[in-house]
Amino acid sequence: MNKPKVKPRANHVTPLHETSGDTLNRRGFLKRGIKAAGAVAVGGVTGAAASAAQAAESIGTGFPSWSTTPGAPFRGYGQPSKFEDKVQRALTPGYGTLAPGTGTSRTPLQSLAGTITPSGLHFERHHNGVPEIDPARHRLMIHGLVKKPLVFTAAALLRYPTISRTCFIECAGNSGPNTLPKAPQTSCGAIHGLVSCSEWTGVSLALLLDEAGVEPAAKWLLAEGADSAAMSRSVPVDKALDDAVIALYQNGERIRPEQGYPLRLLLPGWEGNMNVKWLRRLKLTDAPTHTKDETSKYSDLMPDGKARQFTFETGVKSVITQPSGGMTMSGMGPYEIAGLAWSGAGRIVKVEVSTDGGVNWKDARLQAPVLSKALTRFRFAWEWNGAQAMLQSRATDEKGDVQPTRGSWTAQYSPGNRFHNSMIQTWAVNADGSVNNVYL
Amino acid sequence: MNKPKVKPRANHVTPLHETSGDTLNRRGFLKRGIKAAGAVAVGGVTGAAASAAQAAESIGTGFPSWSTTPGAPFRGYGQPSKFEDKVQRALTPGYGTLAPGTGTSRTPLQSLAGTITPSGLHFERHHNGVPEIDPARHRLMIHGLVKKPLVFTAAALLRYPTISRTCFIECAGNSGPNTLPKAPQTSCGAIHGLVSCSEWTGVSLALLLDEAGVEPAAKWLLAEGADSAAMSRSVPVDKALDDAVIALYQNGERIRPEQGYPLRLLLPGWEGNMNVKWLRRLKLTDAPTHTKDETSKYSDLMPDGKARQFTFETGVKSVITQPSGGMTMSGMGPYEIAGLAWSGAGRIVKVEVSTDGGVNWKDARLQAPVLSKALTRFRFAWEWNGAQAMLQSRATDEKGDVQPTRGSWTAQYSPGNRFHNSMIQTWAVNADGSVNNVYL
Repeated sequence: MNKPKVKPRANHVTPLHETSGDTLNRRGFLKRGIKAAGAVAVGGVTGAAASAAQAAESIGTGFPSWSTTPGAPFRGYGQPSKFEDKVQRALTPGYGTLAPGTGTSRTPLQSLAGTITPSGLHFERHHNGVPEIDPARHRLMIHGLVKKPLVFTAAALLRYPTISRTCFIECAGNSGPNTLPKAPQTSCGAIHGLVSCSEWTGVSLALLLDEAGVEPAAKWLLAEGADSAAMSRSVPVDKALDDAVIALYQNGERIRPEQGYPLRLLLPGWEGNMNVKWLRRLKLTDAPTHTKDETSKYSDLMPDGKARQFTFETGVKSVITQPSGGMTMSGMGPYEIAGLAWSGAGRIVKVEVSTDGGVNWKDARLQAPVLSKALTRFRFAWEWNGAQAMLQSRATDEKGDVQPTRGSWTAQYSPGNRFHNSMIQTWAVNADGSVNNVYL
Repeated sequence: MNKPKVKPRANHVTPLHETSGDTLNRRGFLKRGIKAAGAVAVGGVTGAAASAAQAAESIGTGFPSWSTTPGAPFRGYGQPSKFEDKVQRALTPGYGTLAPGTGTSRTPLQSLAGTITPSGLHFERHHNGVPEIDPARHRLMIHGLVKKPLVFTAAALLRYPTISRTCFIECAGNSGPNTLPKAPQTSCGAIHGLVSCSEWTGVSLALLLDEAGVEPAAKWLLAEGADSAAMSRSVPVDKALDDAVIALYQNGERIRPEQGYPLRLLLPGWEGNMNVKWLRRLKLTDAPTHTKDETSKYSDLMPDGKARQFTFETGVKSVITQPSGGMTMSGMGPYEIAGLAWSGAGRIVKVEVSTDGGVNWKDARLQAPVLSKALTRFRFAWEWNGAQAMLQSRATDEKGDVQPTRGSWTAQYSPGNRFHNSMIQTWAVNADGSVNNVYL
């Protein structure tokens, strides 16, 4: 159904910021759209039988109150509409029953569009709550195997040359619910929402390490947070010298408390917890420190009963966000299937969509520009014929890695492994219009 | 001083998302930086005379409270740190003395980094306040010279194929304060903050117009808002068919009330007020409607006493945001000059910086990717020698247009004209470290 039977007209309509190889058949959409989406619009006004003329007339009478009375005054800092107050981060089930600052909150991916995650909805993973740090009293120390230990205030860092890059951060535990024996019946965000994407701005860590003078013996560094969990991870020096950033800004403004205010370590494409928030020190060492945070968790259980301690780069992955679990289709006809793809290895080069559970695949459109190690939005025109459908997406990155099936991902690990799940997600669209999570 | 005397080392340090032609001399920065920025950092801990070792030790003792007690619990929707509560939109001077919902609030450009404007800080220009619109009761009508009038709910629009693009919106009155006879002594944002940049997502207007069937006689369309000012503007059909979007999302989430919730017209690169918020109808017409909003204001006063009614595309422009008016330099030494450039005509191809009031110019680095009709961040390494300096930036766009000087911009208009000011901004850095606005 996504095969263009009639070519998109080459007149005035420029595909905006979309890559070529577009599977959207605009003319085809319109032919059906007038029957379906258009009719929905008109029907919404005066009932399913209303004509456009009737509907148009109804708009002209009885102006709503917001068109006849002055609106609200200006605000120094704006907030979403009260009609969107259900768009919130999803808290871990059972949250608060143990330590109140320990757990996760997840980005409601199913309610979002585009590629940037609003900072207020960026996922959270805290090990002992969100510290309220006075930036004037916070310090970042670089020490250990360096020629000259250095201590920085945030204000001092802001005199250094800055760089910006848009990239995702994904928790190692993202999509963990789908490793459980039974498919959880919840929203896309509650399963896959431990990934978010921001435009980060800060100082190149390589620049600061160059100033400190890294000793030849230094092969790792310990990154430690100022939170009361003292979250700490070992990072190979090569990554620190490659593309690591001491991030001070997120989506234009100073970084949010939940994301590490006043500063965090940004390791583009590497698992979330290594991007240490509230960063207080970087100690250069000759070997990994084997901190509690890299031995007690974030390690992968292997089929032979051993655990793989370090998995840095996140795998190539994608998920359909619309339609997704818990949504209801509003009748047969044209829909846009939309989703997100990402890879810790670099750029996404292809996302394919299947509506029959992986038998047939077609290329989705990718929103341009496609950035390395950033969330990439894909879109795919689909006409739902009312029968059960099995929706899947499959991403390929510039390294050539292809997102694994459920079977091939699972075969790599012990059944108890919950981390680094990058398997293909299947959403069943049922004949009654309901959408739910299935294991295929 | 920005001429690289020593080439940046070609080892592990990759310039992240920066274009080539980089004037940043990393090695040169470090040589001076160890004396200046580094010393500031260490000095911040135990006084100017402290050694790095002493400073490092002071970090290890007396942990702050946030490192020893559990932090705050999770939140469904996050907010900035309380230590950043002064980063707010700047309200129009005298705001509230007339109609409380009429005026502007401006983005605090001097406090931001990167290119995305946080949605809470996107500038506002309202003509009768911010309406609180129930999306279930809102309609968008397309009528007039069309074959088939159409009425859409927001929900119906969400079944159409969507597109995303990152672009700026700039008010026609932006930088108006700098057309007054005396240079206003205020912040960069209070002068130039009627420009902001977001990732917008919505439906191509061309797609909807195609469905409605535009009559050959239709050359314009009237765009009208549902606010109680019924803000309305005439838009040439060619623009509507080129790259116009019915925007439903801003920076990932549903558009904010101040930006037109539940939907706005997006006309990339065209003056702000034409991007009609709270859009309720588009009427296809054979001529401009000459609404109150395009005759009583937003027109340019010309030297011959006449007014130019329509100026759609915003001119090529840039402004240095750091350092800028009201800031204070923290001593001699290395600084990063940073700013924003944009053009309604397309991509920025070059930004030059002068530190001597326009006598000598050098290329700044441009943050990649440079997007068409989007804010572009530029950065420039500078060593301040303590003498008075006159900082300017000058942008060039892909059309070849170059940002005008104060003199050449002013010569185009009557002295009373306040709109469409794109002239070069000069910030004086004075010997005492103060920074202020000057006319050059």
